[in-house]
Amino acid sequence: METKENGEDEQQVVNPWKVDAKDGGKIDYDKLIDQFGCQRLDQSLVNRVHRLTSRPPHVFLRRGVFFAHRDFNEILDAYEKGEKFYLYTGRGPSSEALHLGHLIPFMFTKYLQDAFKVPLVIQLTDDEKCMWKNLAVEESQRLARENAKDIIACGFDITRTFIFSDFDYVGGAFYKNMVKVGKCVTYNKVVGIFGFTGEDHIGKVSFPPVQAVPSFPSSFPHLFSGQDNLRCLIPCAIDQDPYFRMTRDVAPRIGYHKPALIEASFFPALQGETGKMSASDPNSAIYVTDSAKDIGSKINKFAFSGGRDSIEKHRELGANLEVDIPIKYLRFFLEDDSELDYIEKEYGAGRMLTGEVKQRLIQVLTEIVERHCRARAAVTDEMVDAFMAVRPLPNMFN
Amino acid sequence: METKENGEDEQQVVNPWKVDAKDGGKIDYDKLIDQFGCQRLDQSLVNRVHRLTSRPPHVFLRRGVFFAHRDFNEILDAYEKGEKFYLYTGRGPSSEALHLGHLIPFMFTKYLQDAFKVPLVIQLTDDEKCMWKNLAVEESQRLARENAKDIIACGFDITRTFIFSDFDYVGGAFYKNMVKVGKCVTYNKVVGIFGFTGEDHIGKVSFPPVQAVPSFPSSFPHLFSGQDNLRCLIPCAIDQDPYFRMTRDVAPRIGYHKPALIEASFFPALQGETGKMSASDPNSAIYVTDSAKDIGSKINKFAFSGGRDSIEKHRELGANLEVDIPIKYLRFFLEDDSELDYIEKEYGAGRMLTGEVKQRLIQVLTEIVERHCRARAAVTDEMVDAFMAVRPLPNMFN
Repeated sequence: METKENGEDEQQVVNPWKVDAKDGGKIDYDKLIDQFGCQRLDQSLVNRVHRLTSRPPHVFLRRGVFFAHRDFNEILDAYEKGEKFYLYTGRGPSSEALHLGHLIPFMFTKYLQDAFKVPLVIQLTDDEKCMWKNLAVEESQRLARENAKDIIACGFDITRTFIFSDFDYVGGAFYKNMVKVGKCVTYNKVVGIFGFTGEDHIGKVSFPPVQAVPSFPSSFPHLFSGQDNLRCLIPCAIDQDPYFRMTRDVAPRIGYHKPALIEASFFPALQGETGKMSASDPNSAIYVTDSAKDIGSKINKFAFSGGRDSIEKHRELGANLEVDIPIKYLRFFLEDDSELDYIEKEYGAGRMLTGEVKQRLIQVLTEIVERHCRARAAVTDEMVDAFMAVRPLPNMFN
Repeated sequence: METKENGEDEQQVVNPWKVDAKDGGKIDYDKLIDQFGCQRLDQSLVNRVHRLTSRPPHVFLRRGVFFAHRDFNEILDAYEKGEKFYLYTGRGPSSEALHLGHLIPFMFTKYLQDAFKVPLVIQLTDDEKCMWKNLAVEESQRLARENAKDIIACGFDITRTFIFSDFDYVGGAFYKNMVKVGKCVTYNKVVGIFGFTGEDHIGKVSFPPVQAVPSFPSSFPHLFSGQDNLRCLIPCAIDQDPYFRMTRDVAPRIGYHKPALIEASFFPALQGETGKMSASDPNSAIYVTDSAKDIGSKINKFAFSGGRDSIEKHRELGANLEVDIPIKYLRFFLEDDSELDYIEKEYGAGRMLTGEVKQRLIQVLTEIVERHCRARAAVTDEMVDAFMAVRPLPNMFN
């Protein structure tokens, strides 16, 4: 079967704007690793993170949510030798309310920041969403600030974190790097990577350098002046890989390290694991704005069950964990390994029913969402301004 | 014969990067007006400028150097009703020393600024030259500042003039407008206008919005805040028309007037009128850095003459003024209409010889170049900083 660099073939399409396993199948992550040319994040790397940071690896790491990488081992080599690095992640602010899938890279990035004690830049691509979703500039900027509140609510350390919106920040050293990147990438190349067509507008064609350049320390002169050798690690969902494949091609040609990546699979929709959750169907996802009641009814009504049609059959065959959404969600969010093992064993053997598993999931998610809501309610406009101020970060490498 | 929107056919090619009358012919300006769809600047418009400004029209206007326009009449209509406008011109800083052809738009723009008493923005596209000429960012910026000195030496009024380099100024409202323009123009469209190919890099594809947005007053919030209805007039050589054809397409869709244009023909090379002067052949042009001796020897040695092979034949037939470069140069720079008439008549009748005409031209050009050099020597780095400071313009509309 022909595999294309842009992540599309007869079975699936994965790019920054579309994730779709055709014919309702599952995303084939092994194939994606092959197509994109990244590496599998194996147990030895997880163990190494454990050893280097002296703390248990995050549940997303030990359960394979972050399953692929590029040069993460080199980041760890450098770190082991006493070199620091910085983290870069981001969000396209296309919707007011985030769902749990949106939070995953940020929860994981917070863990990395705490574990490695490194600075973090977070890009809000309001320019991208203005172009792709045809939002007004002002509406994109408003959404960027709203989303910043949810991001800040994940607990980032203000002394180590710089959040910026493209509409506010593009210019100066950042723009110079955009031009340097643009010079190194032909139109044919971006067509190969992103699948643009001649009917796409040139705003889209101009955008990949904007997402590329936060990978280069000189784009942040207020943070990394004179540190052009600083390495960058990007935690993101794997649909963003095309941007950074392009970035890694260009980096050595303009004098920088290739950014390293640590890449997540998609958080499945309530209806089943055929892609990632969709902001356009509110019943496909749990939102951080959902009430306890919403969460209960969505899980009970929509979460696809691997349980059997009748209790008798369920007791006999056990649940099909391969397709069961409550189990998959618990694997993301139930931190206690032994409890998860127990539930998987009992449910898989038919001794536990779907209703019981769903009740436990509702508890877990309600707790996470309520904690997030409390944290977000405490985020003031002044805090957003403070995180987004162009300033030195006092505890950057402490 | 097929005519293309991008100004290329079997006979000639005219675009921002190439001006070439094939087979050594002349540029056919009438055809260019047809292809590009602009209007001829006729005598009635010149008379109107005379009446409205109460001063004699500039020699470039009354002798047809600026020969084409788009909506210049609407600018004059608005001006007549008491509305103001602003001027926008620019330069791609690709070479250290400017030649006389480079100065023409600036000399004319200074006249327009003085005659209409309006503000002026001058864009130095150091980003463009960094991309097209493959210059380093720093070298492009250095050239931009050097060129700014030559531009300032043309006598612009600092209380009405803002000069900016793209590398310094892109960002904020300017970048937002770039995104708005980019959203309105498909890749196919820029291919039609500029002739880009798939092997061109995306930096080039991204650039047209950068040259477009100074046409919109909101790109300069420190100058034109709250004046989104302000009209813009762009004096430029006609090879820049493609950028502004695109800009005029987009303008009404994002809430602005279409910029008006007033467009110049090309200053011919010393060797003959087959294109514009070339920075890559120093003997094709008179540079503002040339000494009196350089000017004398270049004119005597290289200026293509319409005089006849022998004195006898010259006295009999007269000079062929249609191909004579000294006469063409005098038409640009000898301000005295009656003296020019006299020389044309005597030379055309064979009573004046090429050597005499060249001597007069050498005088005229030496005076212009020496005046320019004195003015440029007086331009300090502090003055460049002052012209390029992001600031209100105190006498903008006085």
